[in-house]
Amino acid sequence: MTRIAIDAMGGDHAPHEIVAGAVWAAYEYNVPIELVGKRDDIQRELDKVKNEGFLSDCGQKGTKKRIKIDTSKLDIIITHADEVIEMGEHPGQALRKKKKASIVLGVKAVADGNSDAIVAAGSTGAAMAASLFGMGRIKGITRPAIAVTLPSLKKPVLIIDGGANSDCTPEMLYQFAIMGIVFSKHVLGIKEPRVGVLNIGEEETKGNTLAQEAHKLLAANKDKFNFVGNIEGKELLLDSCDVVVCDGFVGNVTLKVTEGTATLLFKLIKEQFEKSLFGGVVGIMAKIFLNKIYPKINYEEYGGMLLLGVKGITVISHGRSKAYAIKNAVRVAKEAVETGLNKKIEELIEE
Amino acid sequence: MTRIAIDAMGGDHAPHEIVAGAVWAAYEYNVPIELVGKRDDIQRELDKVKNEGFLSDCGQKGTKKRIKIDTSKLDIIITHADEVIEMGEHPGQALRKKKKASIVLGVKAVADGNSDAIVAAGSTGAAMAASLFGMGRIKGITRPAIAVTLPSLKKPVLIIDGGANSDCTPEMLYQFAIMGIVFSKHVLGIKEPRVGVLNIGEEETKGNTLAQEAHKLLAANKDKFNFVGNIEGKELLLDSCDVVVCDGFVGNVTLKVTEGTATLLFKLIKEQFEKSLFGGVVGIMAKIFLNKIYPKINYEEYGGMLLLGVKGITVISHGRSKAYAIKNAVRVAKEAVETGLNKKIEELIEE
Repeated sequence: MTRIAIDAMGGDHAPHEIVAGAVWAAYEYNVPIELVGKRDDIQRELDKVKNEGFLSDCGQKGTKKRIKIDTSKLDIIITHADEVIEMGEHPGQALRKKKKASIVLGVKAVADGNSDAIVAAGSTGAAMAASLFGMGRIKGITRPAIAVTLPSLKKPVLIIDGGANSDCTPEMLYQFAIMGIVFSKHVLGIKEPRVGVLNIGEEETKGNTLAQEAHKLLAANKDKFNFVGNIEGKELLLDSCDVVVCDGFVGNVTLKVTEGTATLLFKLIKEQFEKSLFGGVVGIMAKIFLNKIYPKINYEEYGGMLLLGVKGITVISHGRSKAYAIKNAVRVAKEAVETGLNKKIEELIEE
Repeated sequence: MTRIAIDAMGGDHAPHEIVAGAVWAAYEYNVPIELVGKRDDIQRELDKVKNEGFLSDCGQKGTKKRIKIDTSKLDIIITHADEVIEMGEHPGQALRKKKKASIVLGVKAVADGNSDAIVAAGSTGAAMAASLFGMGRIKGITRPAIAVTLPSLKKPVLIIDGGANSDCTPEMLYQFAIMGIVFSKHVLGIKEPRVGVLNIGEEETKGNTLAQEAHKLLAANKDKFNFVGNIEGKELLLDSCDVVVCDGFVGNVTLKVTEGTATLLFKLIKEQFEKSLFGGVVGIMAKIFLNKIYPKINYEEYGGMLLLGVKGITVISHGRSKAYAIKNAVRVAKEAVETGLNKKIEELIEE
């Protein structure tokens, strides 16, 4: 049965929210869990969840619910790790120095076959580097990439690479497309994913050298998948494509600009409502409406980003992740394992 | 007195909306205009504006007003141009073939000193290429760049390059910063513009090679201006910076992602209101509120993007521009001319 390892020490709200989310996932999805980190801290949090429960907004802004789960009936094991890699540390240096860090032992658990995937909300760089060194690359993949699911008008759109590789080659973007297609098909359930290159115009002669070359490479192989050409930023979230490839720099900027624009708009809308003649009443109504939209654009629903291309499954959660996000990240990890994602990537890349 | 040339044939709504916007600007800002394009078409539109007027939403969604302006009292001249470069044409090829295109003669009017700036809503590529070849570069500038003003929480933020150069060098980004500072200071009225590099993390070691090298170059010259380091996409619109430099590929993706995210959110909000219990009433209220926010994020208010780095002023308007956007573009062009933007860029680049 699939077991999911979780770095209990990673993220802004570790270990409390991470352990709570892990227990919640074990309970809700009936999945065995391996918590990696300081044993005493983890045990204390497990006891807390059992005795006092924890608070969660369940992905809705506003009121919180108290959730209490009897951990004694769940399959949760603890693997002790002495050290923790902090957010500010240089990933490479930290990995060389802290050989017993929770993220390192978590990845090792997957490499050794004790668990099937790892969920980590700590330093993204450390999770990527630990996964790359600890698990190794899938045959035929030059560099692993981050796959991120963004809300779109009708169904989520997958962006790959979301930030693992700032400088890329056209071949890498081609490989990202292959990995994205497999993820979209087998985890997101999209039948024939439409693949596009993030670009600044529709014509194939548009964009930087990388985008043009990647376009050529994908177009030359379009009998193998559903290549739809270039995708512009304005169509990205409007259901024009299922898998969008780009280098990790552009991908990460895109993700953060999406977040920034949404924040700006929500602030402007709130401001406008507060200024209104109807004052308070309308304000409350606005809140209700915005809270209904919120889950649709809330990163917590998607649980995290997947590092694709390593021999194992690594789900990288947002540093701000709370229990609800971690629970969803475990779900994504479980689905990725159970669909045999990596085997399918290997097969398609061999073609 | 400053005269503004306008490519009357460029854009989705040419010549009707372009001529209307030109007349409107001549009337409202008391600025002489040179309309470049097919003389008969332009004259017919001028007569229409005088006799029938034109409809405009004045930058507000919803009801339109009819505006009628007596053109006989305005200083508007027509320069005949036989040809038009269409949106789909390859800029370089089109320029070689159509030597009497409206955009070419419009740029020539500026180069010859008949007008002081050109406003163009047609093919962006053609406007850039025509400006570069027709006006030449400012001394010390490797490549001209597009400066775009985006709405931010408190005051607009300038992004440069917004799409002129897909592949850039660190030196180019440094020059973009200089040009952006001058624009921000003298046209947007920001005293000591904060300059940042668009990047995927705060640390100077983050990002692709280009962003890292540009960061180094700007940091080494930080005694000359207010360099604030890296800016992430999520802070871009939250008043963290006044001038953000990046290559034209990333810049253009950013602009379009902003547009796409706003579109998605407005669609979701509308959908949510329509679904609501209160139905129609709330829907109407929502419309009123959204329409109040709309001007703040409406590209038409900012009139267009400036091509900086050429010996002349070129304002590139959105292809969808209507009269209101063109009027504002003329205002921006006039301000850029009257502040002696190019002379100031030359001075700062020499330093």
